[in-house]
Amino acid sequence: MADLACRFAANPILTSAHLQPSAPGLQIECLLNPGAFSFAGKTWLLVRVAERSAEIPGKVSVPVLAPDGGMSIVAFDRGDPKLECKDPRAFAYDGRVYLSTLSHLRLVSSVDGVHFSPEPSAPLLTGNGPLETYGVEDCRVVHLEGRYHLTYTAVSGLGVGVGLRHTDDWRTFQHAGMILPPDNKDCAIFEEKIGGRYFALHRPSSPALGGNYIWIAESPDLLHWGNHRCVATTRPGKWDGARVGAGAAPIKTADGWLEIYHGATAQHRYCLGALLLDLHEPWKVLARSEEPIMEPTESYETNGFFGHVIFTNGHIVEGDRLRMYYGAADTVVCGADFSLSEILATLR
Amino acid sequence: MADLACRFAANPILTSAHLQPSAPGLQIECLLNPGAFSFAGKTWLLVRVAERSAEIPGKVSVPVLAPDGGMSIVAFDRGDPKLECKDPRAFAYDGRVYLSTLSHLRLVSSVDGVHFSPEPSAPLLTGNGPLETYGVEDCRVVHLEGRYHLTYTAVSGLGVGVGLRHTDDWRTFQHAGMILPPDNKDCAIFEEKIGGRYFALHRPSSPALGGNYIWIAESPDLLHWGNHRCVATTRPGKWDGARVGAGAAPIKTADGWLEIYHGATAQHRYCLGALLLDLHEPWKVLARSEEPIMEPTESYETNGFFGHVIFTNGHIVEGDRLRMYYGAADTVVCGADFSLSEILATLR
Repeated sequence: MADLACRFAANPILTSAHLQPSAPGLQIECLLNPGAFSFAGKTWLLVRVAERSAEIPGKVSVPVLAPDGGMSIVAFDRGDPKLECKDPRAFAYDGRVYLSTLSHLRLVSSVDGVHFSPEPSAPLLTGNGPLETYGVEDCRVVHLEGRYHLTYTAVSGLGVGVGLRHTDDWRTFQHAGMILPPDNKDCAIFEEKIGGRYFALHRPSSPALGGNYIWIAESPDLLHWGNHRCVATTRPGKWDGARVGAGAAPIKTADGWLEIYHGATAQHRYCLGALLLDLHEPWKVLARSEEPIMEPTESYETNGFFGHVIFTNGHIVEGDRLRMYYGAADTVVCGADFSLSEILATLR
Repeated sequence: MADLACRFAANPILTSAHLQPSAPGLQIECLLNPGAFSFAGKTWLLVRVAERSAEIPGKVSVPVLAPDGGMSIVAFDRGDPKLECKDPRAFAYDGRVYLSTLSHLRLVSSVDGVHFSPEPSAPLLTGNGPLETYGVEDCRVVHLEGRYHLTYTAVSGLGVGVGLRHTDDWRTFQHAGMILPPDNKDCAIFEEKIGGRYFALHRPSSPALGGNYIWIAESPDLLHWGNHRCVATTRPGKWDGARVGAGAAPIKTADGWLEIYHGATAQHRYCLGALLLDLHEPWKVLARSEEPIMEPTESYETNGFFGHVIFTNGHIVEGDRLRMYYGAADTVVCGADFSLSEILATLR
């Protein structure tokens, strides 16, 4: 299948050079995986900013938050036999796992949807409390009943779960705690109720039985979730053979809810595909991409902190145009336009 | 510390010889991990019955349910290089994990709380739907606002989560679906509301960050759960160094909510200890057992299908007496009495 993405000529549209570190002694390792939304006549991205501590000779180090928000640097000797470096994203010391960077979320805005500028007056969204001491990542933003709801990956030594915050004005935020317990991420809330209930896609991971599959849950209030059901499993041997996870909010079409999702192989190559879910019973899959609708092919997608990765959790829909923002190679932020009808045509 | 349990002289009180297999071609491998409750003037256990298929020469086999409830036998050649036998409880074929037995739940009753008889007229509780094709296990029974609520481990190839069913009469049951997504088990609901909300302990497991820790969640309706918080982690090097999980419902005492929990070492030795949780803010731990209150010492606890295991998810409280039922060596059902004040004295 042809790659259906029309990538921005300006890609990458945001790199670490565009923003300042959040604190002295930190450096931005990468910008990635933005949430996207419209507000006050502009397009906004809520970008994940992954920072590391300034290099300490002979040490592996990472900034970590205290539950009250204070930051400290954890450091270990590179030669220590208890130190085990896994991949660029994480290491372990004496069996305890650490990320190699600490992520927060930052707002940038644009009038044309392509050229983004920092919003110096906007607050940083940083980890908050004991469940976010390793940071916050990969935020989906949904606009529902007049408010913005942010679902993101809350990371700490206690586990990886889904946190929820609300805002009306993008200045003050209400923290609603962890809505899906470990190990869970990739939570995308539907932007309207179905049959009187809220729905969300999410991605639990299992150490033994099961895998990295897309599930759906329902809620009376966005805060409490139940009736979990599995929607899509991995497909051994295919492009989505090792892990799948929802992207941004499902898009309502006449044919069903269209969900752009990521699929990865065991070799960690991340592509995008689509699921079509029943309009009234969204736990039912009507169709699924056999082949990716977008694959990492450009150099900024194949080379970087963690190469061969396209990951999306933000988009803006205007008519038939799906303007998708994505993290490329876990390093930079890019954009691409799709035609919804072209995607839907591949699902028939 | 002294083991505080006064074991029943009649232990084990239930073995596979006491019950008939649920279907032709199956044999009961073990009885274990009963829920316990009072109903109609008697003490009842909801026992987990783990069955295997009759031996097929040269094969490893296991019964598996279809989503509609029909049973079939999955079998693989013992010499097949794709077959990997892990421990007595599970095997894998071509990377896909299977349990070695299929569990259902069965009711037995007693007038004295020690001698139990099958209830032939009572229905079997078997796996139901796509999330329970590998069976249902380790049910907690709570009596809350006039109804019985059953939380149990729902197992399938899609993952291991917590299922919920309700009953008024132990003849008809309402299936409320999966209330906690994979990987989760050991869910114990508090038997009254606190601050207008329901609470439950649960045990997510994480493949990377985090571990096998006890968490707490809250709910407006028992069906939907949120505000997940970590209550107790494992303690490296101690008796609860590799995994911890809640037992039956927390017991309300003047000092706080008393929760009997299991802790295991990396060598899979399972003991019991206690947590004392704040009466009004049950996510706060007031005290925790330094040493176990019960360890596997008797031969029926150290030898069996999976030895050196004491696991409880059912008890009856009468005044100061905690009458605890437990699975021993994942093979038989046993009982022991404790004094609540003796347990509380170890927590001061």
